[in-house]
Amino acid sequence: MSGTVYGVGLGPGNPDLMSVRADRLVRNARHVAFFRKAGRKGQARQIVEGMLHPDAVEIPMEYPVTTEIPLDDPRYNEVLSGFYADCVARLCALTPTGDVVVLCEGDPFFYGSFMHLFIRLQGRCPVEVVPAITGMSGAWTASGAPITWGDDVLTVLMATLPEAELTRRMADTDALVVMKIGRNIDKVRRALTAAGRADQAWLVEYAAMPQQRVIRLAEAGECVTPYFSIVLVHGQGRRP
Amino acid sequence: MSGTVYGVGLGPGNPDLMSVRADRLVRNARHVAFFRKAGRKGQARQIVEGMLHPDAVEIPMEYPVTTEIPLDDPRYNEVLSGFYADCVARLCALTPTGDVVVLCEGDPFFYGSFMHLFIRLQGRCPVEVVPAITGMSGAWTASGAPITWGDDVLTVLMATLPEAELTRRMADTDALVVMKIGRNIDKVRRALTAAGRADQAWLVEYAAMPQQRVIRLAEAGECVTPYFSIVLVHGQGRRP
Ligand SMILES: C[S@@+](CC[C@H](N)C(=O)[O-])C[C@H]1O[C@@H](n2cnc3c(N)ncnc32)[C@H](O)[C@@H]1O
Ligand SMILES: C[S@@+](CC[C@H](N)C(=O)[O-])C[C@H]1O[C@@H](n2cnc3c(N)ncnc32)[C@H](O)[C@@H]1O
Repeated sequence: MSGTVYGVGLGPGNPDLMSVRADRLVRNARHVAFFRKAGRKGQARQIVEGMLHPDAVEIPMEYPVTTEIPLDDPRYNEVLSGFYADCVARLCALTPTGDVVVLCEGDPFFYGSFMHLFIRLQGRCPVEVVPAITGMSGAWTASGAPITWGDDVLTVLMATLPEAELTRRMADTDALVVMKIGRNIDKVRRALTAAGRADQAWLVEYAAMPQQRVIRLAEAGECVTPYFSIVLVHGQGRRP
Repeated sequence: MSGTVYGVGLGPGNPDLMSVRADRLVRNARHVAFFRKAGRKGQARQIVEGMLHPDAVEIPMEYPVTTEIPLDDPRYNEVLSGFYADCVARLCALTPTGDVVVLCEGDPFFYGSFMHLFIRLQGRCPVEVVPAITGMSGAWTASGAPITWGDDVLTVLMATLPEAELTRRMADTDALVVMKIGRNIDKVRRALTAAGRADQAWLVEYAAMPQQRVIRLAEAGECVTPYFSIVLVHGQGRRP
């Protein structure tokens, strides 16, 4: 009789937007794991503040410091891969005592870090995923306007892509979501301008979190954008 | 003192996947509205079966029969537009007595019918939207594999688009979601084949509902696909 590792999506940030299933799993869990950067509290952990069982054991999984290794250096992947393998060993070792809940920002299977554990857990111990409201749903709801109408095409882009590819794809879609903005904000702005979409773009920071901010990108000025930022262009498709 | 019209996203189908906020609004509502086809129960209404307050008044909004008017005939839009205007008048008339909950499948601002009410309600009475888990999140979770990795591009297409446009866009994305399949399944299959993606495609019917079915599209054979169907191609991006 073994427990299950649950990758539990928490949604965009407001605990009220967690699913009923996620809420129940989080409140009852005796082992609660989450990723965080060294020295930080961890966003996922912060969302469930005040919800954990008094007997819950917390298992922070701290990303190894990788800033000195470039993304395309093979050692970068080696370090991360070793880290994920360690996490999986820790989590699997706990399942004989019961279920383990891994807290995930947004929806776990949508650009989530839990996916790296998921593929390594499969076949080793029971693993299940609880879907959730994505950060982008939180962002377009915060913007106060529908993202897609009729047969609008929606394109989701990571701001880490090369500028030319961003530009080409931004010009060739009805509705647009850009994630992982952070230090890429200037590149995103240039690509939107080249694609003729800059005037239609909105910047949503910290959707569904206490610091939520919604602003036209054109009015954002030279700004530092936080990790939890999304750029949106709303579709304008068919509507009776 | 006036009530608010809430467009409440219910998620993909399992009531357990409603948000805590949606669950609370639905259980407490005294006026509960929902779209349905004439003679049908309505999918959104079905999701909340057994949850409504004993004193709740139900307000079914029945789509006018439009099958005899072609989609591109201006009368189609006129009929629908008149229908939405009537719905808005009914809902607004109820707000002096308190809040009104409109039940929505998936996330209201993502290709949802509530959007047509939302733009007509704005400025007439207070209106708020509660985001939810989309049908596509339900579908990729049901498929048991992450939809996007690293900087994968995700494209969301409606199967109602012309075949040539479907083909072009299917060939030019990492991850793919196709919605509104139904009678368009053969067109979707041809477009996927022409784009070289048919072997990677999954068909998910009724995600997160009791009748859920997940199958490789190549193994689905000549089939009739229900309205609640989504075709997926999973991204294969960077992963340490
Ligand atoms: C590694 S991805 C994880 C996405 C997550 N699994 C989801 O479903 O939204 C991180 C990116 O998601 C976006 N994001 C997630 N939640 C957000 C929120 N509440 N507000 C703004 N952006 C958010 C940001 O663009 C951030 O850089
Ligand atoms: C008018 S759109 C509404 C989308 C909805 N607002 C959402 O967030 O998913 C209807 C389409 O959504 C897809 N869909 C929604 N929920 C689904 C589910 N549970 N299973 C499969 N497909 C679903 C189907 O492709 C369907 O044709």
